Amino acid sequence: MRGAVMHAPGDVRVEERDAPEIIEPTDAIIRVSAACVCGSDLWPYRGIGVEGAGWPMVMGHEYAGIVEEVGAGVHSLEPGQFVVGSFWASDNTCPVCRAGYQSACVDRVPMGALGAQADLLRVPLADGTLVATPDVPSDDLVPSLVAASDVLGTGWFGAVAAEAGPGKTVAVVGDGAVGLLAVLAAKQLGAERIIAMSRHESRQRLAREFGATDVVETRGDEGVAAIEELTDGVGAHSVVEAVGTQESMNQALHAARPGGHVGFVGVAHGVAIDGMDLFWSLAHVHGGPAPVRQFLPELIDLIWTRQIDPGKVFDLQLPLEKAADGYRAMDQREAIKTLLTP
Amino acid sequence: MRGAVMHAPGDVRVEERDAPEIIEPTDAIIRVSAACVCGSDLWPYRGIGVEGAGWPMVMGHEYAGIVEEVGAGVHSLEPGQFVVGSFWASDNTCPVCRAGYQSACVDRVPMGALGAQADLLRVPLADGTLVATPDVPSDDLVPSLVAASDVLGTGWFGAVAAEAGPGKTVAVVGDGAVGLLAVLAAKQLGAERIIAMSRHESRQRLAREFGATDVVETRGDEGVAAIEELTDGVGAHSVVEAVGTQESMNQALHAARPGGHVGFVGVAHGVAIDGMDLFWSLAHVHGGPAPVRQFLPELIDLIWTRQIDPGKVFDLQLPLEKAADGYRAMDQREAIKTLLTP
Repeated sequence: MRGAVMHAPGDVRVEERDAPEIIEPTDAIIRVSAACVCGSDLWPYRGIGVEGAGWPMVMGHEYAGIVEEVGAGVHSLEPGQFVVGSFWASDNTCPVCRAGYQSACVDRVPMGALGAQADLLRVPLADGTLVATPDVPSDDLVPSLVAASDVLGTGWFGAVAAEAGPGKTVAVVGDGAVGLLAVLAAKQLGAERIIAMSRHESRQRLAREFGATDVVETRGDEGVAAIEELTDGVGAHSVVEAVGTQESMNQALHAARPGGHVGFVGVAHGVAIDGMDLFWSLAHVHGGPAPVRQFLPELIDLIWTRQIDPGKVFDLQLPLEKAADGYRAMDQREAIKTLLTP
Repeated sequence: MRGAVMHAPGDVRVEERDAPEIIEPTDAIIRVSAACVCGSDLWPYRGIGVEGAGWPMVMGHEYAGIVEEVGAGVHSLEPGQFVVGSFWASDNTCPVCRAGYQSACVDRVPMGALGAQADLLRVPLADGTLVATPDVPSDDLVPSLVAASDVLGTGWFGAVAAEAGPGKTVAVVGDGAVGLLAVLAAKQLGAERIIAMSRHESRQRLAREFGATDVVETRGDEGVAAIEELTDGVGAHSVVEAVGTQESMNQALHAARPGGHVGFVGVAHGVAIDGMDLFWSLAHVHGGPAPVRQFLPELIDLIWTRQIDPGKVFDLQLPLEKAADGYRAMDQREAIKTLLTP
């Protein structure tokens, strides 16, 4: 089978890999209907955070597809079903999963290590990890369903962690796919006012389509001042940080009102939060790798019933063969997000 | 009147100061029944965080006493009432106050700048700041009532911020007065299991008296491992950080389970939270200067009806004249907390 492999920063190739097989009885093999390129895939692509990485590395952790085969210990799934899973495989039964934090499951397996940008994918802990759709979806639903696997689920978690909800003003720092879908999530969660922080006209347009009521184009202290101006001087109730840099984290923290909530889902490479800054902000901070599995049933339902269309973030759709072009376009910010279809 | 003044690190003197007068119509003057020395008073005493401090500085921000005089704009109080206030004066009407974050009131005034370790004290925004007790209390209730002004209210906020409650395991990092009262708060809030992290036998005893079910004597990674061992390997639901050092903050963060809550009330001098550490912890973090005013009515009620006895943290009671001895004893860790009676 074919799969995307990164040989070094900037060097992604689609090549023949061994087809995956059932290893544990709790595994399933799925035929990937669609995968995508994640903002976090750009970190190794740009050579960031790759100390100790084992090159070459298989790529991809967002996926949806058709079950091909299940292990003897899989009871809730059968071949032919269409499924979506999170970027962490999780048992969904341990105390951490039961509390809704499947991304920290005591048995978790990172799907990135298995390489979802491929024809076939082994999914460990299949009963816990995969959620079947009511039926095999029509093709037009597939982009949105694969979005649920990570980028939507992550934006959703950002909005939930920021306690977006009725009566709340929500600011979103970052206009990548996660930030844009955090806007969609905030809208779905009932937020009254949603401020997208974006400098890019096409992204602003999508943000407005997803529910943004305001756009702030400035950043840093200026951006914070703009948020304050829009919120009677006190700051936003909820702020989603969807970038993962020091500047974006500071911006998020300072844009929140005292007692407000910052949900951060950008992978915080090289970020440090100053203790006194956090102390005086009186903000709540919560984030990390999104427990997407917690949200999947709800997200699939919203997509299935066409209440949301998160697949709109894919402004570049390529056959798997052309994965390298998809990475390049996202790296150059020519594309918001790339969908790959095997 | 007499008041405590710090002339330089380590140099506290009780000397004659001008008696305070009503300046704003919203002011009240109270005759201080009791004040105390705060752990945060030890920062300047030790010369930490005093860059730009204006020496000499009046001292004290914890107080309870009898209203002597009120300004023309004060409507809810009258001379003769016994009152307790927070260490921040707050209007209790702005949007931030109404959300329960009076310590970030848009009109807040730091009571430390007015010097509560004194015979008389001006309290700005008296209607918003002061809460009257049902009657003038008997002497034995006064220590607990003044504790509500900060040290109890701060420990309480730590426990609330950590979401201590029924079914929860709560770990408390720090066995100073705030940490001990966070134990008391966790108990009142219904926590199932309360782990006090303490190396000092007398403090452990008080922690157990306040409701601790377990004591962990180790610190750092060893302390975290001990918490994990007590919690089936997953960590505490709630952790209160009541010290304010890098070590204690890391210990608190690592002792929380994924999705758990860290409430931090130690003034985080020189502390930085590593972004990736916070990301992977999946913990909630919330803290800062406690909005004590939010809790005062409830705390006063619990004290008045003798359901709690937070005054037990005062293991040194001195006349105001001997304030310097009180600072010295706390600095040397000979006393947990010093009560000063004018």
